Amino acid sequence: MSDVFDVIVIGAGPAGENVVGRVTRGGLTAAIVEQELAGGECAYWACVPSKALLRPMELVAETGRMPGLTLEPVDVAAVLARRDETVSRYDDSGQIRWIESVNGTPFRGTGRLAGPRQVEVTDGDGGKRLLTARHAVVLATGSAATIPPVPGLADAQPWTNREATGVKDVPERLVVLGGGVVACEMSQALYALGAKETTLVVRGDRLLGRVEPFASEMVTDSLREYGIDVRFNTTIQRVSRPVPGGEVTVDLSDGSRIVADEILVAAGRNLGSFDVGLGSIGLAAEGPVVVDDSMRATAVEDGWLYAVGDVNGRNLLTHMGKYQARLCGDVIVARATGGKEDLPSMRDRSDAIGAPQVIFTDPNVCAVGRTEERARREGFNVRSVEYDLGAVEGAYLLGDGYKGRAKAVVDEDRRVLLGVTFAGPGAAELLHAATIAVTAEVTLDDLWHAVPTFPTVSEIWLRLLEEYGL
Amino acid sequence: MSDVFDVIVIGAGPAGENVVGRVTRGGLTAAIVEQELAGGECAYWACVPSKALLRPMELVAETGRMPGLTLEPVDVAAVLARRDETVSRYDDSGQIRWIESVNGTPFRGTGRLAGPRQVEVTDGDGGKRLLTARHAVVLATGSAATIPPVPGLADAQPWTNREATGVKDVPERLVVLGGGVVACEMSQALYALGAKETTLVVRGDRLLGRVEPFASEMVTDSLREYGIDVRFNTTIQRVSRPVPGGEVTVDLSDGSRIVADEILVAAGRNLGSFDVGLGSIGLAAEGPVVVDDSMRATAVEDGWLYAVGDVNGRNLLTHMGKYQARLCGDVIVARATGGKEDLPSMRDRSDAIGAPQVIFTDPNVCAVGRTEERARREGFNVRSVEYDLGAVEGAYLLGDGYKGRAKAVVDEDRRVLLGVTFAGPGAAELLHAATIAVTAEVTLDDLWHAVPTFPTVSEIWLRLLEEYGL
Repeated sequence: MSDVFDVIVIGAGPAGENVVGRVTRGGLTAAIVEQELAGGECAYWACVPSKALLRPMELVAETGRMPGLTLEPVDVAAVLARRDETVSRYDDSGQIRWIESVNGTPFRGTGRLAGPRQVEVTDGDGGKRLLTARHAVVLATGSAATIPPVPGLADAQPWTNREATGVKDVPERLVVLGGGVVACEMSQALYALGAKETTLVVRGDRLLGRVEPFASEMVTDSLREYGIDVRFNTTIQRVSRPVPGGEVTVDLSDGSRIVADEILVAAGRNLGSFDVGLGSIGLAAEGPVVVDDSMRATAVEDGWLYAVGDVNGRNLLTHMGKYQARLCGDVIVARATGGKEDLPSMRDRSDAIGAPQVIFTDPNVCAVGRTEERARREGFNVRSVEYDLGAVEGAYLLGDGYKGRAKAVVDEDRRVLLGVTFAGPGAAELLHAATIAVTAEVTLDDLWHAVPTFPTVSEIWLRLLEEYGL
Repeated sequence: MSDVFDVIVIGAGPAGENVVGRVTRGGLTAAIVEQELAGGECAYWACVPSKALLRPMELVAETGRMPGLTLEPVDVAAVLARRDETVSRYDDSGQIRWIESVNGTPFRGTGRLAGPRQVEVTDGDGGKRLLTARHAVVLATGSAATIPPVPGLADAQPWTNREATGVKDVPERLVVLGGGVVACEMSQALYALGAKETTLVVRGDRLLGRVEPFASEMVTDSLREYGIDVRFNTTIQRVSRPVPGGEVTVDLSDGSRIVADEILVAAGRNLGSFDVGLGSIGLAAEGPVVVDDSMRATAVEDGWLYAVGDVNGRNLLTHMGKYQARLCGDVIVARATGGKEDLPSMRDRSDAIGAPQVIFTDPNVCAVGRTEERARREGFNVRSVEYDLGAVEGAYLLGDGYKGRAKAVVDEDRRVLLGVTFAGPGAAELLHAATIAVTAEVTLDDLWHAVPTFPTVSEIWLRLLEEYGL
């Protein structure tokens, strides 16, 4: 096995793997270094297992709205067993086989930059091996949960997304620190599986700070209707867990004290840039690795370093990391082989306009593009329209008491959509239509001829356009 | 009440109602004549109640694929009770109120053309009233189930979509004549509600003749897996039902005889043109009323007659009728008021390219645009790509054993989509993305930047584009 490769990728999450897939398709050789499991955070500790826990909850809610259907109590053990299947029982041999099937060369160990085009791999026994890249090194080192410096917190063995998605014994009493996606999704999933005393401690005055305010409110209402105690403008002052694995005592800024079985920290992510040896090439070891729209690190001479996924800080979303990886892989091939390297497909145009995102809470929240507030801040000539998703016949036919809402943000100068948000049960698959419309800047006049079928929930498109005045 | 209106609409189904809504918004007066229930076939005897019966079946299938969830036997009475709610218990007072709320004037009775711009309304007691239109008469008379001239069939009180969607006592033994949407949807819904001996008698060699063959095959497989007896290349020779409401005996062309409790005829539709007095203005009383892309009847002098919905024969789909009605209403207003009458929004461009349709069987089949066969026949430079919908991570996370398939038909000359078909459980809401892409002719290169979120089923878009070679 040669120690020289055309491309070396550090981190075998979805983004890193996609780089390997694209560069080997283009005829280059590629090494990929992973210190944990090939497949990455998403496959074992994030999107996949969380969805495996959330989908049964969604079906419980959907059947609960349909007269004539009655579910027996959820078999929690069976749900957890299927979760274990979805994460391949934390065994990455299938992913390793996939890497090999596309002619990538996997290395187990920690990869660190050791100078220009040099990567040092340290395996579990401390053995070291130096790899050299002919053309490019790609950082795809992801991110990890942040543990804020709250007195006692780090010593209390707090859960992060990893322990929450990997839950074996559902705690009855749970404290969740945070108000973002992980906090909302996992508090709802764990509540549904048995965490009947769940408290969400949120520093700010709303959940899901990046989405339209109405969607945040709907999720707040839903969490509270489930029975989750959501406390805004509250921080944790001190945590104590004298007996490992025993009760956790949490003192809050509102003067109250909560005793729980576990504490879940979902208070943001550290980017995987701090420990990849950026110092060896004269870069700061913190913060995102700043890249241009071909994913090339802007601060590196000769342009051999790239960064895709969370570590470049653009959008901490699996599908955006994969998107960046595809174009990055293609541009590396083009540059290495003297091909055309400025094709439209080789530049990132989707991160900057507001990446699509689905939050799998009940209700689902999905959004793409700019919120109204952001669009106004950026100086667009904005008009917004909203509509009650539950008033669409197709939603009513899904069950009793369907609650949802949609909002479209229109650029009045060009009559295109700047952003769209849907919040409602099972709304996840509504989003891609909006993603196409926003990304391709389809005009309202063209959208008017895209007839939604009756009776689907997608008729919301017609209602929004009518509301606009078409 | 004046007997002169700017616009007179015959037929208060969804299409007719939408014409009234648009023309009154534009400041015109409008009468609308309905001989049955305002709201039309769709609201009482088609899309709405069928979906009310199909959705519980869909949820049964979805929960059945999810370990940890177990449903009690379906409470059929509760399902039928909700169906009754969705059809407002066959009471149209809410629809009449809506018509009045938009300043339309409803007339109960049968409307017939009585000469240019003249409509004679005959009420239930035989009383007649002559209405005159200043600007336009709009036919929106829909369609009705065809009863083929099979010996004994008409006398056997066969069910049509009306009795099937309105089912009160689910027959245990059912014969269904036909292989189209109504036949497939209702045989599956009634089977799930208790019609455990159901036979589908299909003249041709496939179901759902207008969709891609793979989708027809998937529905055939699914019906058979449910336990429905699907017989192709078979016709009914004779039907006999000596005792009204008693057993029906059906003799088939394959020599077999079936005894059933009911027979459902789903063998096509007669357009609502035969009895609207077309003869009074010198037109043939059969077949579709041919219209131009503004919905104006091409054979009528002075251009005062329009036809929207089923009766013009373009596409027998509620949402297409409503689409035609919107543009027809707008163009009538423009022509009546001397406004600009050739705006892009006032011409039908969506019927001709292959109207979007969702078939709510398990699996859902949804399609928009041209099938591969049609695209080739029309001379496009075609390339097709297919992908296993069940291989998308987002589908796997919906449950065990998800089976589905997607196909995209590409115009190689312009690199746009000519048609897209999805077949899979719960795929209905996937379609609108395709409808936008096909209608607006979004290029593959733009679609490449429309990133599907992970882990949704919409990632099929990425897979199809990768399969294409992007």
